Amino acid sequence: MLKRVVVCGVGLIGGSFALALKRAGKVETVVGVGRRPETLEEARQLGIIDEIATDWAVALKGADLLLLAMPVGQMGAVMAAAAPYLEPQTLVTDAGSTKADVFEALYSHLGHRLDVVVPAHPIAGAEKSGPSAATADLFQGKRVVLTPMPENKPEAIDRVREIWQACGAQVTQMSPLDHDRVFAAVSHLPHLLSFGLVHELQGRGNAEQLFSFAASGFRDFTRIAGSHPEMWRDICIANRHALLAELDAYLTELAYLRALLMQGEAKGLERLFTEASCARNEWAEKYLK
Amino acid sequence: MLKRVVVCGVGLIGGSFALALKRAGKVETVVGVGRRPETLEEARQLGIIDEIATDWAVALKGADLLLLAMPVGQMGAVMAAAAPYLEPQTLVTDAGSTKADVFEALYSHLGHRLDVVVPAHPIAGAEKSGPSAATADLFQGKRVVLTPMPENKPEAIDRVREIWQACGAQVTQMSPLDHDRVFAAVSHLPHLLSFGLVHELQGRGNAEQLFSFAASGFRDFTRIAGSHPEMWRDICIANRHALLAELDAYLTELAYLRALLMQGEAKGLERLFTEASCARNEWAEKYLK
Repeated sequence: MLKRVVVCGVGLIGGSFALALKRAGKVETVVGVGRRPETLEEARQLGIIDEIATDWAVALKGADLLLLAMPVGQMGAVMAAAAPYLEPQTLVTDAGSTKADVFEALYSHLGHRLDVVVPAHPIAGAEKSGPSAATADLFQGKRVVLTPMPENKPEAIDRVREIWQACGAQVTQMSPLDHDRVFAAVSHLPHLLSFGLVHELQGRGNAEQLFSFAASGFRDFTRIAGSHPEMWRDICIANRHALLAELDAYLTELAYLRALLMQGEAKGLERLFTEASCARNEWAEKYLK
Repeated sequence: MLKRVVVCGVGLIGGSFALALKRAGKVETVVGVGRRPETLEEARQLGIIDEIATDWAVALKGADLLLLAMPVGQMGAVMAAAAPYLEPQTLVTDAGSTKADVFEALYSHLGHRLDVVVPAHPIAGAEKSGPSAATADLFQGKRVVLTPMPENKPEAIDRVREIWQACGAQVTQMSPLDHDRVFAAVSHLPHLLSFGLVHELQGRGNAEQLFSFAASGFRDFTRIAGSHPEMWRDICIANRHALLAELDAYLTELAYLRALLMQGEAKGLERLFTEASCARNEWAEKYLK
């Protein structure tokens, strides 16, 4: 049971974390911290947080846990501001979609507290953002990847694991570098590609006509292009080395596809489509309920 | 009321057409024609078709309508085989996803019947294929694009429009070239990109690990990579000039995104993501129920 949990960033992820812990009966008071007073007020009215704090000293007084759930570009500044007020018992975790940059920020700003700072990445999202998108079951059955620091106390890792499990998540562990490579491939690159397609089409003179004939394939391919621009800016910048490597591998694939098209290579196209289709259908069979 | 409708290709599209006409009470007998006896038998057992014909002379005897619903690569051969047995009253339409190539095949093989051949493209699909995926409401509220030929009798166009409307579709018209350009952009390119991503990942040594962390963004982005390989081979080959133009425009977009990432241009990325996200959300607001 946590007496006082401080959530910095009360949007989709931070808000859902608060709601999930409340539903599980694992928290007494949730305190919200953030940049925009109106967002905090909205979260309070929705019952996501119980108190709004405008001051880290007040927020962190007696806190058991601090969750950092802002876009990753703000991690360093928030850690620096919170650092002086962290009490000895206060665990820290985060919800950043990239991990190498969070490690860097932790070493810069929370070097004295690394025993109790356990980075995490909940693999859950939605194309909607903000407190109104938060739900108590966002993490239900979803994976949360912990990327523990070498400095972590084992009890702190256990505690943070239990807290994410209380939110309904299946918790696994990975190194931060593996984490960033894996998610560059299966998450960050698809987001970039989806944003790119919509951006390319919306700038055209006949964009209205094109959009009017877009159907379910387009709908699903571009759902993630409706995602939070600032959050994805920060992810792409933070993980840009791994993301560039993925983008280059994909550009090589597209160059091959382009050559098959240019040469009218029907057999090569069919073989490629068949391999992709089998792999996708096996994936769906295994991982989609 | 149609007495006898012949459907060539009794999979998702042809099967759904038959079921929709039956539900609307617009057809007495549906005759199935196709390459695979087991598929035709499956369609018969599912009540999609009433008769199986292995011979065009038998199939088309007394037919009011022939629907061509095979992958577009088979259009020419099927038209050539059916041509001698088309009766004066038999209307022809198709469900091909590309239109310039269907026009070419029509001029080659059905030149004497162009007054009653009205090409069409139903904008409906699913990642499943085959008779078992067919449903009576697949076309309900979906668009069907007619691309009439200059040779068409106006009454034939009206008739074919009414038949697709009886399936629940909203029928519009376009020229075949406009059609092929529009769908290269909003359908064919996204399919190519989605197949490409899954193909690129499935060939890697750590594909299992990657797939095990893929979540809802990946699920939606790659849904269309589970599509019918032969059908998409044919579409990509048939429409490869328009598709190459779209792919090249997209590669230019990716080169720009790559430069932004290389230079760590956070502002440029955020602007691009914001434009894409606004356009995608406006599209969803307008076109998704």
